[in-house]
Amino acid sequence: MTILSFFTRASSRAFNGYPLSPKLLLLSSLSLSGGGVVAYSESQAGVSKTSVQTNEKDRKKKRVVVLGTGWAGISFLKDLDISAYDVQVVSPRNYFAFTPLLPSVTCGTVEARSIVEPVRNMMKKRNGEVRFWEAECMKIDAANKKLLCRYSVENNSVGNDEFSLEYDYLVIAVGAQVNTFNTPGVLENSHFLKEVEDAQKIRRSVINCFEKAVLPGLSEEERRINLHFVIVGGGPTGVEFAAELHDFVKEDLVNLYPMVKDLVKITVIQSGDHILNMFDERISCFAEQKFCRDGINVQTGCRVISLSDKEITMKLKSTGEICSLPRGLVVWSTGVETRPVVKDFMDQIGQCNRRVLATDEWLKVKGCEDVYALGDCATINQRKIMEDIAAIFKAADKDNSGFLTIKEFEDVIDDILVMYPQVKHYLRTKQLRAVTDLLKDSRGNHRDEVDIEGFKLALSHVDTQVKNLPATAQVAAQQGEYLSQCFNRMNQCEYNPEGPRHFKGSGRHQFRPFQYKHFGQFAPLGGEQAAAELPGDWVSMGRSTQWLWYSVYASKQVSWRTRVLVVSDWTRRFIFGRDSSRI
Amino acid sequence: MTILSFFTRASSRAFNGYPLSPKLLLLSSLSLSGGGVVAYSESQAGVSKTSVQTNEKDRKKKRVVVLGTGWAGISFLKDLDISAYDVQVVSPRNYFAFTPLLPSVTCGTVEARSIVEPVRNMMKKRNGEVRFWEAECMKIDAANKKLLCRYSVENNSVGNDEFSLEYDYLVIAVGAQVNTFNTPGVLENSHFLKEVEDAQKIRRSVINCFEKAVLPGLSEEERRINLHFVIVGGGPTGVEFAAELHDFVKEDLVNLYPMVKDLVKITVIQSGDHILNMFDERISCFAEQKFCRDGINVQTGCRVISLSDKEITMKLKSTGEICSLPRGLVVWSTGVETRPVVKDFMDQIGQCNRRVLATDEWLKVKGCEDVYALGDCATINQRKIMEDIAAIFKAADKDNSGFLTIKEFEDVIDDILVMYPQVKHYLRTKQLRAVTDLLKDSRGNHRDEVDIEGFKLALSHVDTQVKNLPATAQVAAQQGEYLSQCFNRMNQCEYNPEGPRHFKGSGRHQFRPFQYKHFGQFAPLGGEQAAAELPGDWVSMGRSTQWLWYSVYASKQVSWRTRVLVVSDWTRRFIFGRDSSRI
Repeated sequence: MTILSFFTRASSRAFNGYPLSPKLLLLSSLSLSGGGVVAYSESQAGVSKTSVQTNEKDRKKKRVVVLGTGWAGISFLKDLDISAYDVQVVSPRNYFAFTPLLPSVTCGTVEARSIVEPVRNMMKKRNGEVRFWEAECMKIDAANKKLLCRYSVENNSVGNDEFSLEYDYLVIAVGAQVNTFNTPGVLENSHFLKEVEDAQKIRRSVINCFEKAVLPGLSEEERRINLHFVIVGGGPTGVEFAAELHDFVKEDLVNLYPMVKDLVKITVIQSGDHILNMFDERISCFAEQKFCRDGINVQTGCRVISLSDKEITMKLKSTGEICSLPRGLVVWSTGVETRPVVKDFMDQIGQCNRRVLATDEWLKVKGCEDVYALGDCATINQRKIMEDIAAIFKAADKDNSGFLTIKEFEDVIDDILVMYPQVKHYLRTKQLRAVTDLLKDSRGNHRDEVDIEGFKLALSHVDTQVKNLPATAQVAAQQGEYLSQCFNRMNQCEYNPEGPRHFKGSGRHQFRPFQYKHFGQFAPLGGEQAAAELPGDWVSMGRSTQWLWYSVYASKQVSWRTRVLVVSDWTRRFIFGRDSSRI
Repeated sequence: MTILSFFTRASSRAFNGYPLSPKLLLLSSLSLSGGGVVAYSESQAGVSKTSVQTNEKDRKKKRVVVLGTGWAGISFLKDLDISAYDVQVVSPRNYFAFTPLLPSVTCGTVEARSIVEPVRNMMKKRNGEVRFWEAECMKIDAANKKLLCRYSVENNSVGNDEFSLEYDYLVIAVGAQVNTFNTPGVLENSHFLKEVEDAQKIRRSVINCFEKAVLPGLSEEERRINLHFVIVGGGPTGVEFAAELHDFVKEDLVNLYPMVKDLVKITVIQSGDHILNMFDERISCFAEQKFCRDGINVQTGCRVISLSDKEITMKLKSTGEICSLPRGLVVWSTGVETRPVVKDFMDQIGQCNRRVLATDEWLKVKGCEDVYALGDCATINQRKIMEDIAAIFKAADKDNSGFLTIKEFEDVIDDILVMYPQVKHYLRTKQLRAVTDLLKDSRGNHRDEVDIEGFKLALSHVDTQVKNLPATAQVAAQQGEYLSQCFNRMNQCEYNPEGPRHFKGSGRHQFRPFQYKHFGQFAPLGGEQAAAELPGDWVSMGRSTQWLWYSVYASKQVSWRTRVLVVSDWTRRFIFGRDSSRI
């Protein structure tokens, strides 16, 4: 591929002609797990001419506006049949960023530019028109189906910065913002690790800490303070940053700043009892032991209560004791909260009491027509089986006998499993092999039929297994892919609904509800070691897992360009080390 | 080399041991021209432990403080025998930047990080101790041989930001700053192209201009204004930026922003009659024709008199007419002026009436002991031959006859040529083959001897050929190299002076004066075309020259790391085009 397109570009330059248009079919190699975005063709083919006014032809098409170009937005756009809709995208960033590699950017293991791909680049390769606006959505007017957007870069440019857009369908994929839990001083005195710019800023600041610490005229104590790196939050991002920083210091910086190499200290502050506590216990334990060997200080059971320009103040959860630590650089990585524009939208649609925007199982926002929300900005409000239990019983009890036979139950099992994923989790937790095992009596004996009370009792604990999906790239990408499939088959499924049956009414749902498939999760721990939770409760740790990490992350890149860049960055780091220039 | 050090790093990681120390001798391949900095070994060998206090041993060594890590400073440090001196370096940037590639960074042809090399990286590979402070020199106290320095990054760090340094020898290589000629509005409303950060900012701004221009709700006129890129200054930097920008737009951006591709306009404003007027006329002409074909608007004979946030106002030199142009992005690239710290220093040493710091032919600052200045921050005040003419005559006229014979003149010719480089320029201009031809009479006949008046007459026009050296990387690098040779042979040459004889006194000068060798200059013009002025008044233009440019610039990189990165950036651009993400 690269060879051919090299010649394409080279020849188009050499003969001053127009680019040739080879149509190349690219298949992402090494597609180990799902939920990713496959590679786009790098050819110059299919350059679409988007016009600013809506075309006559497009006016008949439904207008879809997508807010955001993160994992959810981009994976929605990737598979959407754009010939069927008039698609507009609004995002303050004109690129997609491969966020799982952000911690690597903080220390220069990977360059910022290697993990981003321009949205326009991804869109121009489609046979259709997607219009992109680099702007921020300031207000969603759900009643009038309108958006107010603003170009938010200070740029000395002429022309109105604000404009409004109308939509028929709105897809909200704006992600979330860092949650400071209103801790005083955090906004002013700490770094976040959410955007590409954050990672670049951290990188410069780490170098600055070292440059300041070696200056003449500082006491050893002052040098120590400047070189005390504090990470608040022991989740995957915080832990990976701590590991990256440790590697950067040990492998590169100690050689350049040998006079302060013994003064560096890295502290991870975690409010829970263990770091990486969303992972399997074996992984938490492995990570803590690895950090202990590396000299990374892990403070668990601590909640940060304030941050000044010199100190970080914490409360020990167990004793209530309050202590302060002098600190250098602080990175705050404790979780996310809803963005103001979404909060305002929630107020409009009667979700003002909720913390996060709620959608149904089809990713449609509750209390609002034609608005979908996916990724970190929303959660699926999974319906409880106990709320529908009477309707399920009634629908299943075909002969209206008042009793449900095993046969009758088996008829509705598929629909139940699709509508209530908690049933599956419950079966796994209880180690039941078949759904009909639920109907066994308290002594474990098979029953031929149950009445409504028996049915309720049998399913009474199932809803304890309702789980919110984690705020990860994997979930967002799968949701985007799912929603684009729904949009592509909108007409088709209106007449031939493919979803499970309505227990409360008649007929079937238009679509199957969204189902998340967990393909596992990585936690890189530095020193070429990583831990991974793989499907089927497998846990893998050590050096080979790091290589698995390399191959999976290389394969999941959104374009061949970023794939080549990321792999060459890794190679460069291996050969030359990381760059310590403060730029 | 790369393979070996790859294994070195790999094995040091694999066995968790310490890096092996291969001593590798590297020779910069393709060293087509001089004045460059050769590659450093990438091995981990020779990690120096610098201590913050001056060592007992070092106290006997003379303290050399170098201000600046640009071409002059770094090439001085590269060759300096650091075992003989206690060397300290002060610079606000902890890296060396390969400035000739800055215009390429503005459009992403080359990444910013590919053209920088950390100073500490370059220094740790030396067998000795160089202490580096990332700080800005705020004041030079020449009387007390002291410097006041300040760590100038806003970083929330603890400890005093100011410190003072004492020196025995001071080497000023701080470069110069952009000269706005006090034009109103320039500082607030334009971009410069002097530092790496400037180039990164321009890159983001170019993308912003396009993103703004395609937003809904702008009139076509507003789109046009936002896409009007104005470059003030038709020197090599301005012209190269215009060419890079044109390529970026034509090769990459028109595909991504097709709806505004016909609205883009690039204007170069030059106060002289031609762009690139420091080059040979054929090159100026070639460049202007190339720009004309490319649709780049060249306005010569125009002086910018003010810059507002919307308009640029110019005065036509020929007619005095004043006109204004609405503009988008403005890049100001018109020349340099002295930095405030140097200006203040000049006031102290009695150079307050000069525009630029003056040094003698040995790069020693005039009016001050033990201070040297090189690169863009100083000029050599070349002594005139007519000022010394009587002394020269007296020294040459060994028999005190009052007449100078050809034989006597030949005895001093070598010393004259070394001390007064203008003689050589004069001979070349007048197409004289031998120096003795100067003594011919007005009809071109040989004379056997001349008296003092005849001698004065013969040399009376020589001083018209005194030239200030241009503010280029080539000059700075050669000066740094020259000065380091002087420092290395300081003791040796005190007893065995190697310079030309003193015409006014007795004995010889300690060193030969600095002599600049011009190895030619490039002007890349975009579209894989370049022009070059080569030694011996050769001029080369076109596609092959661009390839010569590629090979020379690759060979001149200061490290193998940057060489690999720059070449791979060029390759990446060739295959994938330039990245248009706004980061």
